[in-house]
Amino acid sequence: MEVASTETANLNTAVDDGRAEEGGRRPQHLDRLSFSPVQLPHLADYLPNLQTITNPLENSQFYHPSDEFYLSSSDVILRQTVLDLSGNFHSPSTSPHLSYPRAGPRKLIFFDPSHVRAAIVTCGGLCPGMNTVIRELVVGLWELYGVREIYGVKAGYRGFYSGEPVRLNPKLVHNWHKMGGTVLETSRGGFDLDKIVNGIQDRGFNQVYIIGGDGTMRGAVTIFNEICHRKLNVAVAGIPKTVDNDIGIIDKSFGFQTAVEMAQQPINAAHVEAESAVNGIGLVKLMGRSTGHIALHATLSSRDVDCCLIPENEFYLEGKGGLFEFLDARLKENGHAVLVVAEGAGQDMIPRTDAQKEERDESGNPVFLDVGGWLKSELKKWWARDHPDELFTVKYIDPTYMIRAVPANATDNLYCTLLAHSAIHGVMAGYTGFVCGPINGNYAYIPVKEVALAKNEVNTRDHKWAWVRSVTNQPDFGRS
Amino acid sequence: MEVASTETANLNTAVDDGRAEEGGRRPQHLDRLSFSPVQLPHLADYLPNLQTITNPLENSQFYHPSDEFYLSSSDVILRQTVLDLSGNFHSPSTSPHLSYPRAGPRKLIFFDPSHVRAAIVTCGGLCPGMNTVIRELVVGLWELYGVREIYGVKAGYRGFYSGEPVRLNPKLVHNWHKMGGTVLETSRGGFDLDKIVNGIQDRGFNQVYIIGGDGTMRGAVTIFNEICHRKLNVAVAGIPKTVDNDIGIIDKSFGFQTAVEMAQQPINAAHVEAESAVNGIGLVKLMGRSTGHIALHATLSSRDVDCCLIPENEFYLEGKGGLFEFLDARLKENGHAVLVVAEGAGQDMIPRTDAQKEERDESGNPVFLDVGGWLKSELKKWWARDHPDELFTVKYIDPTYMIRAVPANATDNLYCTLLAHSAIHGVMAGYTGFVCGPINGNYAYIPVKEVALAKNEVNTRDHKWAWVRSVTNQPDFGRS
Amino acid sequence: MEVASTETANLNTAVDDGRAEEGGRRPQHLDRLSFSPVQLPHLADYLPNLQTITNPLENSQFYHPSDEFYLSSSDVILRQTVLDLSGNFHSPSTSPHLSYPRAGPRKLIFFDPSHVRAAIVTCGGLCPGMNTVIRELVVGLWELYGVREIYGVKAGYRGFYSGEPVRLNPKLVHNWHKMGGTVLETSRGGFDLDKIVNGIQDRGFNQVYIIGGDGTMRGAVTIFNEICHRKLNVAVAGIPKTVDNDIGIIDKSFGFQTAVEMAQQPINAAHVEAESAVNGIGLVKLMGRSTGHIALHATLSSRDVDCCLIPENEFYLEGKGGLFEFLDARLKENGHAVLVVAEGAGQDMIPRTDAQKEERDESGNPVFLDVGGWLKSELKKWWARDHPDELFTVKYIDPTYMIRAVPANATDNLYCTLLAHSAIHGVMAGYTGFVCGPINGNYAYIPVKEVALAKNEVNTRDHKWAWVRSVTNQPDFGRS
Amino acid sequence: MEVASTETANLNTAVDDGRAEEGGRRPQHLDRLSFSPVQLPHLADYLPNLQTITNPLENSQFYHPSDEFYLSSSDVILRQTVLDLSGNFHSPSTSPHLSYPRAGPRKLIFFDPSHVRAAIVTCGGLCPGMNTVIRELVVGLWELYGVREIYGVKAGYRGFYSGEPVRLNPKLVHNWHKMGGTVLETSRGGFDLDKIVNGIQDRGFNQVYIIGGDGTMRGAVTIFNEICHRKLNVAVAGIPKTVDNDIGIIDKSFGFQTAVEMAQQPINAAHVEAESAVNGIGLVKLMGRSTGHIALHATLSSRDVDCCLIPENEFYLEGKGGLFEFLDARLKENGHAVLVVAEGAGQDMIPRTDAQKEERDESGNPVFLDVGGWLKSELKKWWARDHPDELFTVKYIDPTYMIRAVPANATDNLYCTLLAHSAIHGVMAGYTGFVCGPINGNYAYIPVKEVALAKNEVNTRDHKWAWVRSVTNQPDFGRS
Repeated sequence: MEVASTETANLNTAVDDGRAEEGGRRPQHLDRLSFSPVQLPHLADYLPNLQTITNPLENSQFYHPSDEFYLSSSDVILRQTVLDLSGNFHSPSTSPHLSYPRAGPRKLIFFDPSHVRAAIVTCGGLCPGMNTVIRELVVGLWELYGVREIYGVKAGYRGFYSGEPVRLNPKLVHNWHKMGGTVLETSRGGFDLDKIVNGIQDRGFNQVYIIGGDGTMRGAVTIFNEICHRKLNVAVAGIPKTVDNDIGIIDKSFGFQTAVEMAQQPINAAHVEAESAVNGIGLVKLMGRSTGHIALHATLSSRDVDCCLIPENEFYLEGKGGLFEFLDARLKENGHAVLVVAEGAGQDMIPRTDAQKEERDESGNPVFLDVGGWLKSELKKWWARDHPDELFTVKYIDPTYMIRAVPANATDNLYCTLLAHSAIHGVMAGYTGFVCGPINGNYAYIPVKEVALAKNEVNTRDHKWAWVRSVTNQPDFGRS
Repeated sequence: MEVASTETANLNTAVDDGRAEEGGRRPQHLDRLSFSPVQLPHLADYLPNLQTITNPLENSQFYHPSDEFYLSSSDVILRQTVLDLSGNFHSPSTSPHLSYPRAGPRKLIFFDPSHVRAAIVTCGGLCPGMNTVIRELVVGLWELYGVREIYGVKAGYRGFYSGEPVRLNPKLVHNWHKMGGTVLETSRGGFDLDKIVNGIQDRGFNQVYIIGGDGTMRGAVTIFNEICHRKLNVAVAGIPKTVDNDIGIIDKSFGFQTAVEMAQQPINAAHVEAESAVNGIGLVKLMGRSTGHIALHATLSSRDVDCCLIPENEFYLEGKGGLFEFLDARLKENGHAVLVVAEGAGQDMIPRTDAQKEERDESGNPVFLDVGGWLKSELKKWWARDHPDELFTVKYIDPTYMIRAVPANATDNLYCTLLAHSAIHGVMAGYTGFVCGPINGNYAYIPVKEVALAKNEVNTRDHKWAWVRSVTNQPDFGRS
Repeated sequence: MEVASTETANLNTAVDDGRAEEGGRRPQHLDRLSFSPVQLPHLADYLPNLQTITNPLENSQFYHPSDEFYLSSSDVILRQTVLDLSGNFHSPSTSPHLSYPRAGPRKLIFFDPSHVRAAIVTCGGLCPGMNTVIRELVVGLWELYGVREIYGVKAGYRGFYSGEPVRLNPKLVHNWHKMGGTVLETSRGGFDLDKIVNGIQDRGFNQVYIIGGDGTMRGAVTIFNEICHRKLNVAVAGIPKTVDNDIGIIDKSFGFQTAVEMAQQPINAAHVEAESAVNGIGLVKLMGRSTGHIALHATLSSRDVDCCLIPENEFYLEGKGGLFEFLDARLKENGHAVLVVAEGAGQDMIPRTDAQKEERDESGNPVFLDVGGWLKSELKKWWARDHPDELFTVKYIDPTYMIRAVPANATDNLYCTLLAHSAIHGVMAGYTGFVCGPINGNYAYIPVKEVALAKNEVNTRDHKWAWVRSVTNQPDFGRS
Repeated sequence: MEVASTETANLNTAVDDGRAEEGGRRPQHLDRLSFSPVQLPHLADYLPNLQTITNPLENSQFYHPSDEFYLSSSDVILRQTVLDLSGNFHSPSTSPHLSYPRAGPRKLIFFDPSHVRAAIVTCGGLCPGMNTVIRELVVGLWELYGVREIYGVKAGYRGFYSGEPVRLNPKLVHNWHKMGGTVLETSRGGFDLDKIVNGIQDRGFNQVYIIGGDGTMRGAVTIFNEICHRKLNVAVAGIPKTVDNDIGIIDKSFGFQTAVEMAQQPINAAHVEAESAVNGIGLVKLMGRSTGHIALHATLSSRDVDCCLIPENEFYLEGKGGLFEFLDARLKENGHAVLVVAEGAGQDMIPRTDAQKEERDESGNPVFLDVGGWLKSELKKWWARDHPDELFTVKYIDPTYMIRAVPANATDNLYCTLLAHSAIHGVMAGYTGFVCGPINGNYAYIPVKEVALAKNEVNTRDHKWAWVRSVTNQPDFGRS
């Protein structure tokens, strides 16, 4: 499962002719890009004598797969598509130019469908599309490959060793993609490696589909390792779920687009409340513990937001270039303002009681305080101090559950569908310890180990953030 | 404006070790990819002595652009990201590996904002997001660059020479992104090259932003050529608009996602009508004259559709493998079925009267007949013939205007925003004869000439379509 | 407009002091109103020795019914609430002042829940809320009265004698209120009195709940009569369903509000299409075969409609006061216009082929021609004739199925819930041959015979229509 | 402005024949109902020599008012429609049977439109539909009566004496009915009688339209009284606005239906969160300070709510019949439960700090504590104590601003439209000191004095509540 050697920076950059600064000329030479294909773990890596059979899609009544239908291991997707031909300053040019195996059906498969016992589990918080992924895993396994033993593991990882899995079939899951949440139920914690792998063995599962966030994916790595260690003929596929979109490598996580769409509602409400008041401020807290993707995308989608605060960009309230100064200007100009704040922003600025300093969440991290409530209170204090005789209103909205508990929208439903089918094709082809997801718009397989470590943060040093910030025209709090 | 030489097939492919067919091995060697940067037309190409000034974003009160903020001509985006390392069969490996200039602000600009007179025009049919593009062109020019003379040209190309342009400013366009259609009005036809370019000169416009479909883009090419010919200091930027998503090179066109989202409503309605009847068929016609993207995406998003008919894939009604046989099976199995048909599908199958054979639309093409109405009638005839004593219902929905006349959803609003800002940055940097759009997720500049010719069809020979078809499990009418 | 004294009918009117003409004085005396309670059929009418038992709600674990909880036959609802004290001209004052029994639980019931076999059937076209009514009949019978044998009769009246009824329970119907259409399926026709009543007897049903339109209610009258004739201990309750809102006596039919809400979408789309074109006309056809309620309410809700055409008010196209003249004025004034037309409007104006003249629908009435398509064509001819050189666009939307195939909105869900519970309480109390529905905001029982005959038309002679017409400021085509 | 004498209980009740308890018989005699018309204040009450003119609607180009078009003072609407013919126990039979003047145009009016200067003001919190009312007041005055001087008073009552009113016209307000909030801005407080009436005089307003809640209506009474006292030729009309629906006499307040509709979203989200967890509780706080109408209607509309807590019905947590016992049972049965709580419920149960005991809102009442936060905390404590080893989740949603800051739905838009036109017709006819609103489905005029005092509470002693409670099957906490 080694990621192949990457003796890289293999970018033969063009010589910039020096006129770029003058505004419009372009390099003249062809450029060459080296890249290194990422290796994917496979059951055959430790079970060398597995039998293969021809993909049963060959026998479909309705369609007739041509040779092009099947993908081979030589079909790859480039990870890096933005380049600086001058090789001078932008970071992309120095990162390794990896490629990942393309997702899709293989002509030979490593599982006899009549022997498959598949398990599906959902872990962590809710995210739009979970039920679609489950539904499509069931429908895909059943319809495309003829698998008949498919089980839903209830209530997260603990379901592998407590409680009874539910038998699933296409009829049962028929309408699940129109429902928010997860019919299989979910929970946090409950990760007990031995119990889980024993449970997998005891119940005879040989395909395990794990839908969850970064913590869950780290758990999946451990499970995968243990399964390798025990040399079990069990494939493990992860399907990354994080409404925050904070998982790296893949373009974006499922449910994220739905969340951004839904976030327009509270932003609209905040905008209306602010506009309808005298010196009205609408304040919306959006999900995003360590990353501000939802806040940022929702802001750019809405165009009603004056300022968007995210964890990746520190901010301050008082003084020159601070939030209060900016809001003062906006209120004078427009009579109202709308603030969006990601839940993870400003955590260092909120005073904590001694008890709060000690408090830890299930993962051992300091608990998050409510940045929205704190901001509301600070805003009121500021106004009462600086403008004691003027009307002022702050309306604070925390729409968290209303955003994440909805069914996936059309974009995410399609995404979840292709994600689930990608996972099935990969597992049937004998891959294991992988996740699937879109890279530059095409579905790829990625070692779960890589994804469990990759973090997708808003890079505030990057051109993109700067540019986007220029769209909103909001302060950068001293960043440059 | 030559696309640089492409001494191609520059893919040093790995030697496939022959085990791919056995299900899981991967190539061992690093691979190298050559690519050729696309050249973009620039005002300096024919006006060599233009002055440049420093980008006024430098003086923003609120943010402090770092060096990384500005892009140069060496920042490019790869077009091709899916590769077959074996170089054997899949088409991508043989196409030229082009790269396009990345969109974004340049440090030196070729327009003094105080001398800019910008014109914005919308042409052709409605598409979600047109008003957002207009709004953001106005707000971006005004807020980022300090342009104060911005005009809306009314009712399409003819507005350049008839009627008075409307002066626009941020206050006026404030809420336009929440409205469907185009406040500037639109029309088809009215393209009179001389009158248009004269109108541009007479009114003193030096930046022209043209929002329209492929016909409009072909017009933009002509306008651009004439402007070059006259050596006018006028930059022309196109913003491709096609709800059908049939424009090539760019990832997808704005409004397309909204249309797919909206298409879920009629599909749901058709599904409900079909399910509530005995042998009920729900039939939905979706936009897509020469391409089936909306139909295809809406089908994959919905999961309630039994069969999706698109122009790129011929179909037939009677006999083995035909539509009727398939529907017969579905009705027996489920008691109902849902059909989605793109408006351009099956045009050759519909009998035409002599008058209809002669009829031509504004562009000289045969007019489209209503494939939905025809299908409904054929379905009824078939049933009456084959099952005269059984109940049967076909409910046909044509939701065209309800889909395209809505405001953009969040995804498309963000898209339109970045599109407009991309166009502004490009024009201010002196580029001309270009369009902007996302390529593999990043915004790029593309010669309008290329886009006007590129057609984005659903490639039914490609792996992707085949795979997708396997998701819906629908007949392929003999395709393989 | 004399408000003359008139101790007419049963109205003891005040003496008007003659100052009405001066603008504001009022009668001084108390007035008296006679009214006559409507009699409701009861099983005891022809089965005099039925046993009663105490309502099992008495034994509820969770709530404790007080005496006020139960209604008696003396609880009634007045039908007429708008009066003209002068008694002179307005119609209300001369109609009989009826009262209807109030719906709700009775303390003594005529059915032993353990012996109940309830049948539920849906007939005719779809209407938002059908599934809610079914769900609540099931849940109410089960939870409130402990009934355990509840059956869904499939696909309309024919289901009583062909096919097998489906056993229903609360778990099964749990989410039905969130689904459009009817899970029980529906059909038109299939009314065979003998077979139906035999089917009821054969299957041992003793409570029959019939959900359907006016035709269905006339069928219910016949079934009820036959059951009386056979002296069967079978109660028949009707639940009037007509999305057109054309059933009389009750305030409005379920699903109607949802339809009006949904109709805003096509009207918005038509408005956007019209506004975005030069001389654009948006044309929307809304349901309403003999009555224009949906069109009228949707028009008043929208405020974007310039003219609303309904079956109750004849219109004409050409000449003074005609539609074309009006549209000409609107296009000159605003550049666009929106038309709403009820499907039953203008049927006499559309030319029919000989075949069409002969054609009859299932009920023997002439088939409806597409007034929208006809209007679109007439509009185009008119413009081409009168303004040959000007641009003109008509966009025609027929949203019928998209409006009626949706789930009920909150208002209608509540309505359907109370409707179903009303029906249950009435049937358990031994009433039969009745329907339930709100009269002046409170739920009442009404003999099905009355409702089957009552027609709810928009009274264009009435003050209300005139006033409403003044809101839209549209032409009245010579009406006064 | 006396409400005419009400020598009441004039109900000649039928003699119940004693068989009601046996389940089905009805009274035999006609019954008679006395009622007393309510008197409405009129400018002529203190300005006896006002001139009248013929309603300019007579001269409309488009429609031709018949005699029936105009209403007179003898057109009334009965308030009481539910009767107990036995006169025995139910409260309705003993209340006075009032009638109110019907709203609509009068043939003679007391204002010359060319001399009208109308002022519109919005006060208090946001409510869906405020902008529609404003829009329709402007459009109605302008289009129907030809009034040209219409002003929006900014930011509530204080706008009469500070700041400049905004001139309004139909073009300006064209799209306001599609926007939430109030474009005129609103505020609480600022009521200074002298300054307000002086401001009215100084600015020459002679029609004042006041949109606001019960506090605002009490202010309107005072303003009206002072105007009478000063004998000003100024008509005052109130338009009751309370999203809580806590104003009496009228059927329901505008915006209420929209709020109930919107409340389905958080309830759905809470339901999904609860269902997706192990022992999950979804908790939603809905508006309703002294009344539980939104909570109650939203509960009945949703059918996903297990228990609805409202201010009118006390509840308790611990012990037999308490909330915890009920939830325990539901969790055992279904694995999850959904709670809806009105913001004013349980205020006496929440412990207050000394500071909180002192705290008063702008009206001098004790501030409301967050019942949702308190319940969430109590639920967690209960579970930790009683089920320490079992998973448990409470998700709490406070959707307040997301519910009230939306535009009115179709039902409320129509309502607001008729409300505004009713107010205009009443004012033009010289009535003053009145509000308008629907009574039993028809629009009426009511003395503002009456409405300012009338409270619309959920009557938990009444049959209706009991019956409704039986629908939800929730505990009644000892009520009977």
